[in-house]
Amino acid sequence: MTEAEFIAALRRLPLHKGALGLGDDAARLGNLVVTTDTLVEGIHFLSDDPAGDVAWKLVVVSLSDLAAKGAVPEGVMLNYPLSETAWDRAFLAGLDTCLAVFDCPLIGGDTVSMPNGAPRVLTVTAFGRDAAAPSRSGAKAGDRLWVTGTIGDGGAGLAVARAGSGPEALLAAYRRPRPRLAEGRALAPIAHAMMDVSDGLLIDSWRMAAASGLAVSIALDAVPLSAAYRAYAGDDPMPAVTAGDDYQLLCALPPDQRPTGHATCIGTFAPGAGLSLTRGGVPVPLPDRLGFEHRA
Amino acid sequence: MTEAEFIAALRRLPLHKGALGLGDDAARLGNLVVTTDTLVEGIHFLSDDPAGDVAWKLVVVSLSDLAAKGAVPEGVMLNYPLSETAWDRAFLAGLDTCLAVFDCPLIGGDTVSMPNGAPRVLTVTAFGRDAAAPSRSGAKAGDRLWVTGTIGDGGAGLAVARAGSGPEALLAAYRRPRPRLAEGRALAPIAHAMMDVSDGLLIDSWRMAAASGLAVSIALDAVPLSAAYRAYAGDDPMPAVTAGDDYQLLCALPPDQRPTGHATCIGTFAPGAGLSLTRGGVPVPLPDRLGFEHRA
Repeated sequence: MTEAEFIAALRRLPLHKGALGLGDDAARLGNLVVTTDTLVEGIHFLSDDPAGDVAWKLVVVSLSDLAAKGAVPEGVMLNYPLSETAWDRAFLAGLDTCLAVFDCPLIGGDTVSMPNGAPRVLTVTAFGRDAAAPSRSGAKAGDRLWVTGTIGDGGAGLAVARAGSGPEALLAAYRRPRPRLAEGRALAPIAHAMMDVSDGLLIDSWRMAAASGLAVSIALDAVPLSAAYRAYAGDDPMPAVTAGDDYQLLCALPPDQRPTGHATCIGTFAPGAGLSLTRGGVPVPLPDRLGFEHRA
Repeated sequence: MTEAEFIAALRRLPLHKGALGLGDDAARLGNLVVTTDTLVEGIHFLSDDPAGDVAWKLVVVSLSDLAAKGAVPEGVMLNYPLSETAWDRAFLAGLDTCLAVFDCPLIGGDTVSMPNGAPRVLTVTAFGRDAAAPSRSGAKAGDRLWVTGTIGDGGAGLAVARAGSGPEALLAAYRRPRPRLAEGRALAPIAHAMMDVSDGLLIDSWRMAAASGLAVSIALDAVPLSAAYRAYAGDDPMPAVTAGDDYQLLCALPPDQRPTGHATCIGTFAPGAGLSLTRGGVPVPLPDRLGFEHRA
């Protein structure tokens, strides 16, 4: 089955009210928000990615979902496949750093043995508190689309990792992304909708618009690119907006809201459906691929 | 690393107070208990186990931990590797039945793609409420050791599954075990310690004694065996007490407590350390293997 078919089938099972119809990135459980992510070797990370970076990314992928709810991390649970001692030790060191940096203690978990040669499959479940918890579906016609930070650094960093050499700043953006927790807490109370950008700016913007029953238009010239990205990949934003691994936040704000801090207005929601792009005010065709489909 | 080494290393990371030092089968999060389990194809279930039974067992393994806390299931999160359509459909059907039978709705989850030929790795995280939440470490010298139901049916059912034929009742005990939720709620308020028996009666009894800083003695003649088990495997309890997959509850009760319902007194806690066995009041040597180590 495809992921969409499987999730549609899950929606016909007995659902908890906090599941919100399985339409959001985090569930509600009392005063907590909960999100879970599985990373698979060879699918979500490279076999030669350092183990400490895999630990970091595993946690950050979930903390990024908490950030999109404006939540404070309460802790994480870890499901871990035991491996070679050197890999396990490096994983633990990366995990230790990540949990300390983001003040996110370990709550529990499970460790398992794997058959020889099987790819590593790691799961983290993250809990957040004090969430304003905007959904991805609350954008209103006339809202502006904002994004935190810069876009494309993670995708360019993946290219650097695959090439084996390149700018350290981009490699770090891919291997040690930072969840936008402070930005999330600042934006959540004023956002009509918010989600993280994990699969690519275009596909995730389209998903927010679709969930909200609206169309969205993005001005490609407005998409914030870092100096490191421009130096490595050039000034064309198209590779940046279709790449994953950014873990920035995307939010819909009323037109009179101008958030303080590092966010950029890149588009507008309107009645209708679908995604459209402009450059210099002129419509631009959509690329064939909007982003990654495999990790919605 | 071994599982014990890895968990010892995890204890040096930042821990949530609800993690209880990672010494228990479930964590506390506000008024919830939380437990997570990963099942790996070829390790925790057979490749030819029906998908619906794998779904059932995945959920029940975690609900059994909730039962040991005397908790009412609040819901589960699922991390699922997409597979062939027929397997996915059968999994969903088994999941649907299980969630309905145990009144345990789906809260959320994640679906992932797997590399071709990789073993299936499934994770469930279960939440329970209203838990009396006895730990596994609270047994006191003089307490009696009690077990619910009968022991050995799951292990005998695994033998039936491997052989390809045999008594249906045993196969059902292996493939569709039932979490002892009602028994757990009845026992939790009076138990000094409680845990589920997933890896074998002997190893899990030894673990409860070790966690409580005590010795435990088990009368093998007292271990409850089902008629189906006796007819298939004979009257020797030794294979039963070293087999896994029972998902009964094990608890330490003060000597004046006699629980109503289906529980049997099988042993006594005393000052000291270690596990000892008797048969007809006479000491019996321990078997070489006390149970399964791979899924503590």
